[in-house]
Amino acid sequence: MPRPSEDDLIARFFAPLATYPGAVGLTEDAALISPPPGTSLVVTADALVASVHFFPDDPPDDIARKALRVNLSDLAAKGAKPRGYLRSLALPEDWQVEWLEGFSRGLAADGEAYRIPLLGGDTLRTPGPLTIAVTAIGTVPGAAIPRRNGARPGDLLFVSGTIGDGALGLIVRLGRAAWTGRITTESAAHLLRRYRRPEPRLALAPAVLAHASAAMDVSDGLVGDIAKLVRASGAGAEVAIQDIPLSSAARDAVAIEPSLLDRAITGGDDYEVVAAVSPAEAQAFEAMAAAEGVAVTRIGMVTAGEGPPRLIMRDGGILRLERGSFSHF
Amino acid sequence: MPRPSEDDLIARFFAPLATYPGAVGLTEDAALISPPPGTSLVVTADALVASVHFFPDDPPDDIARKALRVNLSDLAAKGAKPRGYLRSLALPEDWQVEWLEGFSRGLAADGEAYRIPLLGGDTLRTPGPLTIAVTAIGTVPGAAIPRRNGARPGDLLFVSGTIGDGALGLIVRLGRAAWTGRITTESAAHLLRRYRRPEPRLALAPAVLAHASAAMDVSDGLVGDIAKLVRASGAGAEVAIQDIPLSSAARDAVAIEPSLLDRAITGGDDYEVVAAVSPAEAQAFEAMAAAEGVAVTRIGMVTAGEGPPRLIMRDGGILRLERGSFSHF
Repeated sequence: MPRPSEDDLIARFFAPLATYPGAVGLTEDAALISPPPGTSLVVTADALVASVHFFPDDPPDDIARKALRVNLSDLAAKGAKPRGYLRSLALPEDWQVEWLEGFSRGLAADGEAYRIPLLGGDTLRTPGPLTIAVTAIGTVPGAAIPRRNGARPGDLLFVSGTIGDGALGLIVRLGRAAWTGRITTESAAHLLRRYRRPEPRLALAPAVLAHASAAMDVSDGLVGDIAKLVRASGAGAEVAIQDIPLSSAARDAVAIEPSLLDRAITGGDDYEVVAAVSPAEAQAFEAMAAAEGVAVTRIGMVTAGEGPPRLIMRDGGILRLERGSFSHF
Repeated sequence: MPRPSEDDLIARFFAPLATYPGAVGLTEDAALISPPPGTSLVVTADALVASVHFFPDDPPDDIARKALRVNLSDLAAKGAKPRGYLRSLALPEDWQVEWLEGFSRGLAADGEAYRIPLLGGDTLRTPGPLTIAVTAIGTVPGAAIPRRNGARPGDLLFVSGTIGDGALGLIVRLGRAAWTGRITTESAAHLLRRYRRPEPRLALAPAVLAHASAAMDVSDGLVGDIAKLVRASGAGAEVAIQDIPLSSAARDAVAIEPSLLDRAITGGDDYEVVAAVSPAEAQAFEAMAAAEGVAVTRIGMVTAGEGPPRLIMRDGGILRLERGSFSHF
């Protein structure tokens, strides 16, 4: 198949995603956004590089979705409603039209699912690996969002969904660890899917905005991210290990290989939300989350005195970790 | 010098650029922007890849400025006032702290000059070339900006600044063409500087917003970009070659090597603004531009009937070009 020009490629693959009138079908150099009166904008940017953040031979629609979803996860944790995104896509020398079809299909599906139109971007060539840089724009009513630094001693710590699936899914994808052959096929598929397609908790955003004193998304490992949150708040935390929600697939893996628990709570790629909520707000927070169908689990509390989170084991002992979070850098 | 962690690096090099309160010194996952009531947002994204869009051994502050300025140029052409930007920076394996110092110094200087704070972004590693993806956010009063498609037959075509310096500066940088050794040192330095540091015409933005029926920035070559503008408007154009403004450095080069005129008007990297302005608005447009100290030159007019721009030579003949615009893709 002959390779289209940049303009043809935009018209064919990306213009259909630009459903917002102000994006003018991507025929312009810039998009115009008129946010609802009284709202503020929440903006975030995250980029992914092939072989660093995903496997070059992952399905292209999964790569597209992950690039978008890691940004949506930041919007969710700040209580924002998605409004649009821009993406710069640097294609390697050997890019294929079929790959781009899959990539744009993934963006289209998620754009519809999360009601976030493509507003613009840039498509270019690189002598290096495929690189995708996304900027996501959301709105909140008013002019305040939950920060990392608002947690107060006594606040309860909640986390959405389940923790560790992404980190274990990466091990499944690598396929070199013996345990990956001993869990059920369903468990392996679940972990892999969670690695490839994180689920941004946008439905939780209103509850976070209304009730959290501090919140952030969990992307670099639960323990390390809680450490960042409470450090920004000048506080500490206690987390009950047995309360950290694991999927049945993750429990399946940990039952076979107990050391995977450490990996699950430090490995990253969760894209869940961790929120500090004052005891007075906790019931309302849980009720709103339940009404939106998002599981939230209380895993600990914020404590006075700055310091790394204390991880309490079932027997009351303290778990020591070699490292608290993952860094791609 | 030991390499800092990602967090250290952000704190040291980028947090000082995040002067907007809603960016919280880049200690957050997202920034909060509260645009002035009654304004709309203009958003644009452009990325640069080393060895494709700049030379890896260019001064790092110039690389930073170019990455920012090519985006500011889009804001200027849409009449927008800069409000903030996000940048994803993928650093190659061999990155140096000194390089990053220069890079952040360039961003700091331009952030101050153009009053545009850093709002956020992502710093990551790549096995490939240095890649910088910028998203710039501006505002306009009201909810309308000049588009490409608003030009009407009879509108006058204006261009800001001078054309061709960037394209000729690239040839100077490559240093392989004989003419580059025959122009004056000052001319060579001027062309090179214009290639490395485009000058976004932000001071022209209010005039464009108030008086242009269509506008865009000139980045892929004047002739090709005019072709895009009038095509979007369902029109054609006549451009008087001798009216296209050239710097004295470019004239110096063209005097030695006449074929460079083609390159100057098609080569790209101008980052000037081309605007279609109705005859009734032209005087006011020119007066506003003059009041802001931005040179604008009338180079032709929009004509009825869709078709490529007709390039009129001094003797009345039509110049034929082999290609109308440059594409990095």
